[in-house]
This record gives sequence, C-alpha cells and structure tokens, in this order.
Amino acid sequence: MPESYKVGIIGAGRIGRIHIENLVYQIPNVTLKTIADIHITPELNQWINNLGNLKITHTPEEIFEDEEIDAVIIASSTDTHALFIQKAAKAKKHIFCEKPIDTNISRIEHTLEMTEEEEIKLMIGFNRRFDPDFRSAYEVVKKGEIGTPHIIKITSRDPAPPPRDFIKKSGGLFADMTIHDWDMACFLSQSEVVEVYASGGVLIDPEIAKLGDIDTAVSMLKFSNGAFGIIDNSRQAVYGYDQRIEVFGSKGCIMVDNKPVTNLKIFTEKETKEDKIPYFFLERYKQSYINELRYFFNCLREGISPRPNGDDGLKNIIITRAAQKSFEEKRPVKISEIIP
Amino acid sequence: MPESYKVGIIGAGRIGRIHIENLVYQIPNVTLKTIADIHITPELNQWINNLGNLKITHTPEEIFEDEEIDAVIIASSTDTHALFIQKAAKAKKHIFCEKPIDTNISRIEHTLEMTEEEEIKLMIGFNRRFDPDFRSAYEVVKKGEIGTPHIIKITSRDPAPPPRDFIKKSGGLFADMTIHDWDMACFLSQSEVVEVYASGGVLIDPEIAKLGDIDTAVSMLKFSNGAFGIIDNSRQAVYGYDQRIEVFGSKGCIMVDNKPVTNLKIFTEKETKEDKIPYFFLERYKQSYINELRYFFNCLREGISPRPNGDDGLKNIIITRAAQKSFEEKRPVKISEIIP
Amino acid sequence: MPESYKVGIIGAGRIGRIHIENLVYQIPNVTLKTIADIHITPELNQWINNLGNLKITHTPEEIFEDEEIDAVIIASSTDTHALFIQKAAKAKKHIFCEKPIDTNISRIEHTLEMTEEEEIKLMIGFNRRFDPDFRSAYEVVKKGEIGTPHIIKITSRDPAPPPRDFIKKSGGLFADMTIHDWDMACFLSQSEVVEVYASGGVLIDPEIAKLGDIDTAVSMLKFSNGAFGIIDNSRQAVYGYDQRIEVFGSKGCIMVDNKPVTNLKIFTEKETKEDKIPYFFLERYKQSYINELRYFFNCLREGISPRPNGDDGLKNIIITRAAQKSFEEKRPVKISEIIP
Amino acid sequence: MPESYKVGIIGAGRIGRIHIENLVYQIPNVTLKTIADIHITPELNQWINNLGNLKITHTPEEIFEDEEIDAVIIASSTDTHALFIQKAAKAKKHIFCEKPIDTNISRIEHTLEMTEEEEIKLMIGFNRRFDPDFRSAYEVVKKGEIGTPHIIKITSRDPAPPPRDFIKKSGGLFADMTIHDWDMACFLSQSEVVEVYASGGVLIDPEIAKLGDIDTAVSMLKFSNGAFGIIDNSRQAVYGYDQRIEVFGSKGCIMVDNKPVTNLKIFTEKETKEDKIPYFFLERYKQSYINELRYFFNCLREGISPRPNGDDGLKNIIITRAAQKSFEEKRPVKISEIIP
Repeated sequence: MPESYKVGIIGAGRIGRIHIENLVYQIPNVTLKTIADIHITPELNQWINNLGNLKITHTPEEIFEDEEIDAVIIASSTDTHALFIQKAAKAKKHIFCEKPIDTNISRIEHTLEMTEEEEIKLMIGFNRRFDPDFRSAYEVVKKGEIGTPHIIKITSRDPAPPPRDFIKKSGGLFADMTIHDWDMACFLSQSEVVEVYASGGVLIDPEIAKLGDIDTAVSMLKFSNGAFGIIDNSRQAVYGYDQRIEVFGSKGCIMVDNKPVTNLKIFTEKETKEDKIPYFFLERYKQSYINELRYFFNCLREGISPRPNGDDGLKNIIITRAAQKSFEEKRPVKISEIIP
Repeated sequence: MPESYKVGIIGAGRIGRIHIENLVYQIPNVTLKTIADIHITPELNQWINNLGNLKITHTPEEIFEDEEIDAVIIASSTDTHALFIQKAAKAKKHIFCEKPIDTNISRIEHTLEMTEEEEIKLMIGFNRRFDPDFRSAYEVVKKGEIGTPHIIKITSRDPAPPPRDFIKKSGGLFADMTIHDWDMACFLSQSEVVEVYASGGVLIDPEIAKLGDIDTAVSMLKFSNGAFGIIDNSRQAVYGYDQRIEVFGSKGCIMVDNKPVTNLKIFTEKETKEDKIPYFFLERYKQSYINELRYFFNCLREGISPRPNGDDGLKNIIITRAAQKSFEEKRPVKISEIIP
Repeated sequence: MPESYKVGIIGAGRIGRIHIENLVYQIPNVTLKTIADIHITPELNQWINNLGNLKITHTPEEIFEDEEIDAVIIASSTDTHALFIQKAAKAKKHIFCEKPIDTNISRIEHTLEMTEEEEIKLMIGFNRRFDPDFRSAYEVVKKGEIGTPHIIKITSRDPAPPPRDFIKKSGGLFADMTIHDWDMACFLSQSEVVEVYASGGVLIDPEIAKLGDIDTAVSMLKFSNGAFGIIDNSRQAVYGYDQRIEVFGSKGCIMVDNKPVTNLKIFTEKETKEDKIPYFFLERYKQSYINELRYFFNCLREGISPRPNGDDGLKNIIITRAAQKSFEEKRPVKISEIIP
Repeated sequence: MPESYKVGIIGAGRIGRIHIENLVYQIPNVTLKTIADIHITPELNQWINNLGNLKITHTPEEIFEDEEIDAVIIASSTDTHALFIQKAAKAKKHIFCEKPIDTNISRIEHTLEMTEEEEIKLMIGFNRRFDPDFRSAYEVVKKGEIGTPHIIKITSRDPAPPPRDFIKKSGGLFADMTIHDWDMACFLSQSEVVEVYASGGVLIDPEIAKLGDIDTAVSMLKFSNGAFGIIDNSRQAVYGYDQRIEVFGSKGCIMVDNKPVTNLKIFTEKETKEDKIPYFFLERYKQSYINELRYFFNCLREGISPRPNGDDGLKNIIITRAAQKSFEEKRPVKISEIIP
C-alpha cells in the first residue's frame, strides 16, 4: 500500500481552494489536516466545514509546528512565498509552492540554499507541465519521436485582460503571463535559454498603457543547443483562452491545438460551426492542478526530486528579467547579462 | 440555499461504486447515508470506510425504513430492479434506477403503475443522454437549429467483446448494447419508434454464436413523424470505444465525433498521427454519470418529473423485443406487434 | 513512349462536355477527333471550335465508320447507350459508356454478350470509384490494413432536389442517386450483395410524392461474405453535397469525411467557423472524371480489362431493382429474387 | 464577351513551363503565341509542339517587336528580369514578371520608374497571395471579420533543402524562402513593415554553413500600425511542405492549416492516422499559379493596376536586406536604415 501523507495548506484564495478541493477529493492516500489563512471569513469557514473535518487557523505556525504534518502547500500571496518556504524547510516539511518563488533573485537564491541544506523536497507550481496534452507532447519529444527540437512555438492568449488592480501589481505581462511560457519552452526544449528578444505594445486597451504595462507581446528565445523559441501573447483573445504548443524537430513536428468544449459540428445552409474553446483557465487547466499534486506526492513516495524545482522557478524569473530588459532596451539580451 | 437530500444506495458493484463516488464527491447538497449490498467483502468495507462516515448493510430494508432517507439509487442486479422500485415507491422515496427496469414487459407495467400511485419521482439510468456532447447535440436539435430531424445515425461499437458469462445472461446484443442506442435515437428524434428492422451476424468470434448471440448488427428505425434511424453495432472495434451520433434535418446536420484522448498531432516522415480514442466506457462516459445524478436531484428540487422516466425505460424494452423478433423473422416488425 | 489513341465521343451535353474538356486538356497521348451530337447549336459549335481542330457531326456513324478511331466515349441519353455500345463493339472500338448501360436487364445482358464476342474493352462510368479520396480508401481496404470489412457506411446526400422533369424520368431515387452508392458499397466491400432492404419517404417536398418518387431513403445491404452495408440518401442537404464513406473491419476502420472548400478556421467571440463543403457534384467529383478516363486508356495500353465493367453496371441495375421491390413490398429482397 | 490577349513568354524552365501550360489550358481568352528561351533543347521543342501551334525562338526581341503581342510573361533567370521589364515596357507591353525584380535596389527603382513612364501594367509573381485558402483568409481579414490585426504568424518550411548549387546563388534563406513570407505578412496585415529582427542558424546540415547560408530561421516584424509578425522557416520539414498562416485580431482569429493530400482517417489498434500533407510546392501551390494569371488578365481587362506590383516587389527586397543586416548585426533593424 502506498505511503500516506498529512498535509497543511497556507492560503485559501482562488488557487488555494483548488488545491484544497483536489487534496480532499482527488489525491489518494493524502490527508489534508490544516488550512491557514489570514482572512477567515464566515463564508470560508462554511466552505471548509462542508469538506469534512478540517482544522482552520490564522497562523501558519500551527502547520510548521505540527509534527504530524509531512508536507506544506504554499498558496498565499507571492510576497510571502520565500518566507514560508524557509520556515517549512526549517521544520523539515516537504514543500509545494505556487509560482513564483519571489521576484527578487537574491532572495530566491538564498531561499533555495536553505531548502538544500534541509534536504526536503521542493516543487514549484508551474501547473501547465501537468496538462495531460502538453505532458504527452513532452513525452513524445523526450522519446525522440520528432528528433532534436529546432523550433518551439507557444501561443498563449488570455480571453480578457485582468482587473486593473492585478495589472498594477503583477510585475507586467512578461512576469504574469509569459512566465508560464518560458517554463513551457524550457520544459519542451530540454535545453537552457541563453538569449531573449522581447517586443510588445498596447493594442487593446490604452488604460493598460497608463498602468505602465503592455497587452500584446512577441518573444524570441535562443537555447543553448541552438534551438529557437517563439512565443506570442495577448491579454484579449475574444474567442477564448488560446493555449497551443508546437515543437518542430529534425524528425518531425508535434502540435497541440485547443480543444473545443464539446465535439459538436453543425452544418447549416449558412455555415459550418464547431463549439468554442474554453474561456476560463480553471476549466482549461483543471486536470493539470490535480496531476501536479499527484505527481508531487508520488515523488515523495519514490524519493525522487520533483520538477519544476526551485532552480526551474529561479530560471523563469531570470528569463522574465531578461525579457523585460530586452523590451526596454529594444535589443536581444543574453541571460548572462542578468546572472553573470 | 438549495434543498439537500439524504440518499441510500442498493448495490455496490461496478456501476454502484461509480454512483457512490459521485454522490460523495460530485453532487452538491446531497448526502449519501447508507449503502446496501448482499456481498460485503472486507475490500468493499475498506473502500467504503475511506469515503467517510457511511453506513453499510446487507439489507435494503434499512434504507426503505429509514425516514431520513429521501431518495434511493438502485444499482443492484437487473432481476431485483422491479422489486426494489416497488418497495422504494411504497416507502415514498424518490428513485433513480439503473437500466433496464426489467426484461418482462408486464412486470414493468405493473411496477410503473405502482410508482404512479405513490407520486414519487422515478428516473431510469440511460446515462448517455447526459454525456455533455450528446446533450449539447440534443439541445441544438431541440432549438430547431437543424430543422425537423429526417435521419438519425448512431455508431455504437465496443472495443472488445464482454466475458462469455456476461453474454450468456445479457439477453443478447440488442438487449445489452443496442438498448442504449434505441434510447439515444428516441431522445434525439423527439419522436416515437413505430417500426424496427434489425439484422446481424457473427463476424468476430464463432464462440459468440455458440452462446446464441451475435457480435455485429445493423438496425433501422422508423419514427412516427416519418424520420428514419440507422444504428450499427459491433462488439469489437479494435481501435477503441466508438460512439458517434448524427442528426440530419431539414435545415442542417449535427455530428458528434469521437474525441481522441489527447489533442496531439504528430507529423513524421512516415505518417501523420492523432491520439487514439478512449477505450473504456467508464472513461468515455465518466461525466454523464455525474450529470445524470445532478439532474435527478435538481428535478426533485424543482418538482420536475425527470427523463428518462419509467415510460422511456419501458419503450426501450419494447423496441428491443421488436428488434429481436425482426432479427429472428428476417422482416421489419411494427411496435404495435409487440404491444397491441 | 506510351501508345496513343484517337477517340470519338457521342453526346455533348453536361457530362459529355466534361469528358470533352478532359480529353483535350487532361489525358495525355489521347486525341479527341470527332464529336457527335444530335443537337448542334451555334453555341455548342463555338464551344467546340475554341477547343481546337475537332470534327463535329450529327451522326455517330461517322465515328463508328472511322477506321482511325480506337475508342468511343458514350455520353448520350440513357436510352441510346445499349444501341451505341452494340454498334461500337461491332466496329471493334473500345468503349467507355456513361452509367447506366440500360434500365432493362435483358437488354443489358444481350448487349454485354455482344461486347464479349467482339473482344473489345468496355468500361462503365461510375466515376466515384476514381475520386482520389475514395480510391485511396479502397486501396487501404484492399491491402488489408483494416482487416475484413464488416460494415460499409455510405452517406450520400444531394444539396437540392433535381428539376421535376428529371425526377419524372429518372426511374426514382434508388435508380438515379443510390445506384452510385450500390457501386461504391460493392467496390469497397470486395464482395457481392445478396440482399437489400430499402425504405424511404417524402420528408422534403410533397411535390416529389406527386411525381411518384421519394426524397429520403435508407438502405441496408447484406454481402455474400457476411458484411453489412448501410446507406442513407437525401435529395436536400441544405449545407452542401454530403458524400462520406466508412469501412469498419476486423482490424480497424477507415473514414473519409467531406472536405471543406478552403481550410480556413475563424474564431470569433460568437463562434468557431469552418468553410462550407462543396455544393456542386462537378466541383466535388472533378478529379474523378479525369482519373477515370486516364485509367481507361491505361487499361487499353496495358491490355487490362477495366473496372467497373459491364457486369458491374448490370449488378448495380439489379440491386436497384431489388431495392425498389423491397421499398414497395416493405420487406428485405434477395438478389436471387430478381435474377434467379 | 471578354477582351482577349496575345501573349509571349520568356523562359521555359520549371516555372516557365507551369505558366505555359496554364496559359494554354487554364486561362480563358488568352492566346500564347511565342515562347523565347536561350536553350531550346529537342526535349523542350517536343514538349512545346505537343501543346499546339506555338512559335519558339532564341531571341526575346521577337516578342518585344511583335505588334500582335499584348503582354509578356518573364520567367527567365533573376539577373535578366530588370532588363526584360525595361524592354517590354518600352515596347508598350503589359508585364507579368516572376519574383524578384532584381537584387539591386537602385536597379529596381530605375526599372520601376521606366514602367511608370510607359503606362503599362506590371505585376510581380508572388503567387502565394493567390492560393485559394490564403486569399480567402485575406478576404476575411479585409472585411474586418476579425477586427484589426494584432499578430500575424507564418509557418513556412520546405520539405528538403535545395541543391547546393541553388544555395550558392540564392542570396541566402531570407532571400529565397522568407521573401515569400514577407510578402504574405504585408498582404495579410494590410500595413507596412517598419522593423525586422531576424535570427537563424544551421541545425540541419553543416554543409549549408560551409556555403555561407543558414537552414533554420525565426523573424519578427513590426508594422506601422503597431501589429507584430512572427515567421519561422526551416529548409527541412521531413513530414512535407508546411505552409500555415494565422492572423490574430481585435475581434477574432483566422487560421489556415495544411491540407492533407486525401481526407482519409485510419483507425487501428495501434494508432489513428491521417494522410500526409503535400510534399512538393508545385502540388501545394498549383492553383495559385493559375489564379495569379487569371487575375493579371482580368486586371488588364478592367483597367485595374494589379497587385503585387513593382512597389510590393521592391518592399520585399528591402525587408530581405533588413533581415540580413539584423541577422548579421544581431539586433533589430529599422526599414529606414535600408532606405532612408
């Protein structure tokens, strides 16, 4: 019988609740024991009670100090991630932390050093690697079915811009949207990014410009093995959440297209229609959140170091920094310019 | 807040366990209280304990007699359905019963009379009506987007023949496979079957002939509104579980194709490949089992009579009988020949 | 260098002109010399002159008596086919004749006997066998890639009913539409039809009923090897010319779907659209007319007997007769009832 | 009745012969009179004789001096284009010239000035604009169905590298492959390129590096209206001739995928297969060559200035120059740096 784990989670916001539901219903041999959140509203209290016999607390310390708890899920706000990783590591608990680790490179490096000393497992939540379709594509590439990757293409467009408050604090399009695509490009290429050229502009909403951000971007990556990556982003694809990947290699090409919500095809005198593609990221990536946690606990069971790990998380931040610099200075920027 | 229900279930076999898991994890405001099964193995006991605080019993009577219980799910063997429906109806409990109600037409009629007297709701588990794709197709037809249906086409092929023991007792291909397609054809056509012509043979496995059954069949339906239905069945589609529908009408056509497991497309020097279609019916129709129970409890809440109801269940048995007669007598058979 | 042929054609109507253009522009090493038509309008005269140096005549005898001419294409009205085949055969010319040979079975048999005596090649123009997609499907089936065929499915729907004058003389839906599908089913199954069950009605236009015809039909075939065929026809698919085939076999399944006119996919806030499928049969089957003539002359060059031959043409008439009888007598009809 | 034209063509090489066949068989009301080529082999002579009564000559002057000839098709080697355009223009003949006009920008400018003085029509053969699918996509964009274009994506990959001799003289990948994509990007965006960033490398064949060229490239365009273009090229897509476009706009997205050769889908125990995509550019773009000439002569008839015109041809050369400079200097290059 597989080893079972007791878990605490910090943060019961939108993404935290996804993990909580998945822990309760979808992850076998794992028991969620404690939920910590700084704002325990009556509504949250009620929601948690409906899920069964769970402990709710204001203080994450209750999780760190609980000897029964083996692993901590960190789903609190970004500015708390590094601190909670450090505390959990000190408490010898395995850690699954939402992306990003932090926005400060030195703080990330310091945090990662600590986790290494404590010999616990740390996984960062770049969930798209666990989307069943993208994962299958990765497996095909890894098996060599399409040879050596030459060009990785990622299309990543949101259905609608986020609220202004989010944009103000997000760190910009490259930090909040493209970061997922850097991770996917690295994952699929099985190589290291060495250079970034990023360009973009405001084509959708002038208000976004006023907030200092862009809404449309195209980025080009060079990998250490000579391969190229091209990514295009938009904050507003009116037809839905457009998420596609393509890996072109020496022996073939693999493409993963969007899946319409249903498989209906309607033929009329006027036109042929398919169903629309999903609109919400939670609908599109639902299974990836389940699969990433299953994988995390399987890694614990088998003593494997999970990926994406802290280094992956750090690299994605560094690429973001390079992209931002490229965008500002209107020139390709080497990764070595960011981390000499 | 939506009204909540307490539920008992009879039968914890393959299909029963699907309903149990769905009741526990997927159906909001419904509480599974009691599970009755005649064979409570230690393994079943353990499986149920993992799901939480549920009562297990050998005797369905505990469910019928429990005043707290509002609704009964019947997932026991076919020969017990009619009896349990009668008992549940007498106990004034709403009923969701797996298909078929029974194989004896008089007994079905008698059972349905009883449920009508007791004024409880009865739904029969033809789950495919609740497959999201097929349901959407139905909605499109119902809205009139393709006009009046003229031809309904159903492809329904299993990936591999069932065990011989199943075939011995199933009542034959028309009773165990095509019954779902009769129901789907009636559902989509929004009309009544008036005549059946069914033909078939043994093309896959001579052993099936020895058991008195066939493995390949084609059926043709006439509907009261003049429309036609064509259904083809095979017990062995080596490429997977092939489930497609098409409704051709005066103003257009709607087709629902199989969905590959992933949306990958691989291009190599030798070929272009897609992913395979699902192989297991539980994988293919997973969502339909959840949706049918959600719908059932919503009907209770809103005081609506659920469909497919007892009459739908009866009709599907009558069409099966007509198809069997048509196959044996090698001629089209009118429904009025079965039920004058 | 390939042997070259001189050709005469009888009939310069709609289908005749397709063959004329193909002979002039598309068939290498074949020279069209003479065109015979009973109605030589100034417009036809002009049209032919634009094609080059071609002889026009009212009398087919000029073709039969021309010793330079090797092969005759018969594209005149159906009632003249048998006579012209006989005359061309006597003149020792190879023959490509449009379908059907005749509507009278004895006359067909007599005609075929004559062509056999004369040792010339006779091919009948069931052009759909030469559609590149359907031909490729046939090759896949023939190679055994999907094993033994169990079920052949053909969807064959016209975009709009033909003119009333055509319906009056066509011999009915089974004779003018389904005859192509009988041929395709035989071609794909590589077996012989032994029984037909055909049903149909008037669902589109009551005027068609007044003319003694139907506009919607479903047919079921049994083949000598145990396989089944199912065909559905409609005279009015408002979305275009719907032509699909499917062969399901012991080792797999092959499907040929309609091709949209262009490969565009448009995603908007409201919907996802593809292009429509072709509307006209000449557009849909353009290449098949070219390919059937190329094949015919290649057969002459290589001394191969072309298919579909006279026997194929005869069989399709017999199946039509059986279908008509089945429709009228509302029962399955054996081929042996038509030709004992 | 439409006005008819007499035509001479210079160059009967690979592309010249395509135009010759199309002029003879596919372009109504146009008569090819004279073919000029410096190498009249017996094989060419024979090939031309088979097409009918055509004049063959070594000297293009015979075309320029022939008063009957209205239009000249220039399909000779690139280094002769400018000279023949000038001569044809002086002779007051309309001109369809294969791309590119020349590789020297001043010489192009001088040539275009001359054609303007003579008031004849000049069209340059960027045939892909006349591919039926791409043309339809353009029409959809032009009608505003997807709003303002934000991102244009072009995938353009050859099935196999050209012969080394071709690579030696081609001017490099950007000049021989990507030039078609610059043209397509301008065509679809309906805007002007203002900046190019191009990168590339040798990932397929080290021999290509020895010849001073690359085999893989990615390019990014900025348009005057703020839109972006991304193009990826490879000299070797082992699965075929990969030609796709996508235009993402404020109100939707249009995608044009590759078309498999046939529409077959084969399902077996092991896999689901589609047919491969076309391998040869002549097969892929066959219709575009017909359509561009039909369009050219329609423009003459209607007095419309055809596009792509001389300016389009010049712009594509300038973008190529900018891309080459960008590749060499590893930085984005403004069009204004090439043509101040």
